[in-house]
Amino acid sequence: MYFQYPLELIGTFFFAISGALAMQDKDHDWFGAAFTGFVTAIGGGTLRDIMLGSYPLVWIGDINFLYAVLVGVVMAILFHRVFIKLRRTFLLFDTLGIAFFTILGTEKAIALGVRPEIAAIMGMFTAVMGGVIRDTLTNEVPVIFRKEIYATACLAGAIVYLVLDLHTPLERNINLVVSIVVIILIRLLAVKFKLALPGFRRSG
Amino acid sequence: MYFQYPLELIGTFFFAISGALAMQDKDHDWFGAAFTGFVTAIGGGTLRDIMLGSYPLVWIGDINFLYAVLVGVVMAILFHRVFIKLRRTFLLFDTLGIAFFTILGTEKAIALGVRPEIAAIMGMFTAVMGGVIRDTLTNEVPVIFRKEIYATACLAGAIVYLVLDLHTPLERNINLVVSIVVIILIRLLAVKFKLALPGFRRSG
Amino acid sequence: MYFQYPLELIGTFFFAISGALAMQDKDHDWFGAAFTGFVTAIGGGTLRDIMLGSYPLVWIGDINFLYAVLVGVVMAILFHRVFIKLRRTFLLFDTLGIAFFTILGTEKAIALGVRPEIAAIMGMFTAVMGGVIRDTLTNEVPVIFRKEIYATACLAGAIVYLVLDLHTPLERNINLVVSIVVIILIRLLAVKFKLALPGFRRSG
Repeated sequence: MYFQYPLELIGTFFFAISGALAMQDKDHDWFGAAFTGFVTAIGGGTLRDIMLGSYPLVWIGDINFLYAVLVGVVMAILFHRVFIKLRRTFLLFDTLGIAFFTILGTEKAIALGVRPEIAAIMGMFTAVMGGVIRDTLTNEVPVIFRKEIYATACLAGAIVYLVLDLHTPLERNINLVVSIVVIILIRLLAVKFKLALPGFRRSG
Repeated sequence: MYFQYPLELIGTFFFAISGALAMQDKDHDWFGAAFTGFVTAIGGGTLRDIMLGSYPLVWIGDINFLYAVLVGVVMAILFHRVFIKLRRTFLLFDTLGIAFFTILGTEKAIALGVRPEIAAIMGMFTAVMGGVIRDTLTNEVPVIFRKEIYATACLAGAIVYLVLDLHTPLERNINLVVSIVVIILIRLLAVKFKLALPGFRRSG
Repeated sequence: MYFQYPLELIGTFFFAISGALAMQDKDHDWFGAAFTGFVTAIGGGTLRDIMLGSYPLVWIGDINFLYAVLVGVVMAILFHRVFIKLRRTFLLFDTLGIAFFTILGTEKAIALGVRPEIAAIMGMFTAVMGGVIRDTLTNEVPVIFRKEIYATACLAGAIVYLVLDLHTPLERNINLVVSIVVIILIRLLAVKFKLALPGFRRSG
């Protein structure tokens, strides 16, 4: 897919914006915003590559990812009032981001030779662990424990991708689109209808 | 020791149960339970192997560990009411788990050629860091700062193992049993008699 | 520079003291103090080396760093009443520590062949991430989000070092001293005049 590389950079850019904006509720300074933007954008892929022993890390080997983060952080600082009003737009960008990063992470893990079960976990980690590390550092309950179906949507999309990839003759690009759409649909439907997985309390 | 591999899987299984149950006090869903079960079970060994540069990580190279986690999580979700009543039984399982994981982690570090002092730390990390990561993610004070003598028991057992291994002609299996028993005894006596290390306040 | 190695050990020793003392406000025991001392002293360099794939980690390859931590922790436990009274002295030691670790971390990253932008981030991480991990484990807001200009001073010093190193014919030792002095000056002036970067609230 010719668009993969620019899409990765754009995804990194959007994650950096959302990470930097997460700091605006707190009385933090611009460094704090840059730091959380950076961690949100590169944390998931970093954890994936360290666990797989894949070096150099993406953002260390290709400086453009760092610049994508910097541009995102600067835009978050300059236009944070605008971004806040666009909360719905942001849900969409975040959903696009996690969908795309899940499948790219899954593909990278498969390319490194791990089993599909591990690749699905790595795909989900790529998408959600940046946010988890950010929330842990800022003493929030991590997003994956809070939100309606979030990481589960990523895991479902990764599994769809792997099943299509390993058990059907479909082309990669079609698999990619289908599994990304699956993640987006699950996530947006979950938000719209306030769907959640059952839990200990409710199941008790 | 013929039993080592099944015992490792069983230890992983029990750690996954205890990690998943840690979420039931909070209003989290099944994904949250699975995630904390996974982190608790594989976090310590993952940190050890990343610090030692030992790849692939155990659970990435051998899929059975992931299945051990999954079975543990499912059992925690299905039978959590039963498990809660068995709190005493759980103390025993947790104690067996940290004892066994400490010694296995120490042995692995020695096998990778590090000095005994480092191996003892790696053994303790294998046993306790999964719980520490879980507690950090769920905004709890980590178990090693809270409980009566816990990580210290692991460290003591690791040192006993290393002294026996390096300075006596005893067989590995005997060392293993002795040092595991040391950890279990220290831990259970600490719980029974509410023993704690001195601290800044009390020592003040 | 002949003094580099002893200075690294001394920096580790001071970071271990300050990490161990961080636990005295809480009702934790000596193990907790040793653990936080250890994490504070070695956390930043460990994260840097894992991200760069540089093995063995410094404290695993050279046991003297572990002993520097141990001596620091024991001194913190024995003399904590004295250290607390010397709060000003401690600001100085902490500032010397982050200044020195920033530049050493930057140099190590450059030596491993990464781009200067990445090396500056690695230098800052070496200095501040040990404290960040400690604060996260003890449920504090990490130091980099709290304090007056702190990590930013490190980043500024790293950039000064890199500009001097890559664009001037100055000797390494002179670069080293200049950039360390830059960090110390920024940090001490920030504390004295309560300087802070602008933030979302104030800039709103």
